[in-house]
Amino acid sequence: MVAYKRHVDTANISELTISRLSIYLRCVDQLLEAGVETVSSQQLAKRFNLNSAQIRKDLAYFGEFGVRGVGYNVRQLRQYVVEILGLDRERRLVIVGAGNLGSALCHYSGFSGGNFLVVGVLDSDPSRIGDATPAGLLVEDAARLPEIVAQRQAEIGVITTPAAAAQTVCDRMVDAGLRAILNFAPIRLRAPESVLVKSVDLKVHLEELSFFLAHAEG
Amino acid sequence: MVAYKRHVDTANISELTISRLSIYLRCVDQLLEAGVETVSSQQLAKRFNLNSAQIRKDLAYFGEFGVRGVGYNVRQLRQYVVEILGLDRERRLVIVGAGNLGSALCHYSGFSGGNFLVVGVLDSDPSRIGDATPAGLLVEDAARLPEIVAQRQAEIGVITTPAAAAQTVCDRMVDAGLRAILNFAPIRLRAPESVLVKSVDLKVHLEELSFFLAHAEG
Repeated sequence: MVAYKRHVDTANISELTISRLSIYLRCVDQLLEAGVETVSSQQLAKRFNLNSAQIRKDLAYFGEFGVRGVGYNVRQLRQYVVEILGLDRERRLVIVGAGNLGSALCHYSGFSGGNFLVVGVLDSDPSRIGDATPAGLLVEDAARLPEIVAQRQAEIGVITTPAAAAQTVCDRMVDAGLRAILNFAPIRLRAPESVLVKSVDLKVHLEELSFFLAHAEG
Repeated sequence: MVAYKRHVDTANISELTISRLSIYLRCVDQLLEAGVETVSSQQLAKRFNLNSAQIRKDLAYFGEFGVRGVGYNVRQLRQYVVEILGLDRERRLVIVGAGNLGSALCHYSGFSGGNFLVVGVLDSDPSRIGDATPAGLLVEDAARLPEIVAQRQAEIGVITTPAAAAQTVCDRMVDAGLRAILNFAPIRLRAPESVLVKSVDLKVHLEELSFFLAHAEG
């Protein structure tokens, strides 16, 4: 049905391309909700304020797709993007750091819903271990990380500890076999090349708003 | 010292350009820490794995800057990006929704530090009003939003309520005079064109990790 390259050289694909694939997925979901069955890159671009050449280029990384002059079958396009993003199977997360942010992420709909599932919330603070999070998970001892990762087949580690603890937690996640880490601590982490560490900096969103305020002021 | 256009047509500047300006700011801060005084767009690109043509293009939106063959004075470049992003003055935030996420953001270093300052955390739940957040702010009644915005000169509203309450909170923020809103609720919000609403979707980061896992698996 969909002919694309399963073994893509990820080194050539930018972070921005991947984040645009996430955007396309959301657009396609809206089209399906609206009952739209076929869409051209031009229509997709116009409707969602995107760039049609960019859309074709992004999707072309992964092989031939779409029919010239006809466009994309929306359902196939969705399946295609889902597979490229590796969302055709469940991805399990372990959160280390059961403070406010870790607790919030436990029941954040994007983190436990769809293809993602939080299977553990860990902390090294004895006063927190055993506490129930709002999502109903019990906080477990961070020392049990290797065992929890193995038994529950977790693939993604989420770091929500203070900055001072983040590198140690990162090292332990790597040792436990996690190869994808999402870091919320405000510190740059070192990890082997075989492990992807993505740091989230929420301040960039504030900077965008600040830009808008500064230039709207005139 | 720095010649750039104060009144930039923001409609022509993409969100991606602005987020790259945030990245340049972080790079420049690292250069200053390392004692580097002059940098070319090529050096900047190489050192931080960016694209030199893109850097020149992004900065050119805002007027002439840098000296051909010499590059940018790092300190001036920093000042330049700071001013473009509107970070040459304090920007005050009010957070509505004092649950785990709102409480976490109160003392998130990016949100209270540098040019941003959280001046209020509000909630409509009487059982939360009066609670102390980890950052030491007391949770105030969401009904006092207009008064708090005016008295404390807040400019940015942050929504960390459940999805069901987010549109009402957004409307009240607009009525209270906030023109920049950062939304963490998983819902698309409507606001007048004069107000910038930026929704944060943390799931995109997980999707990037999922992409990496899928393609590293082979």
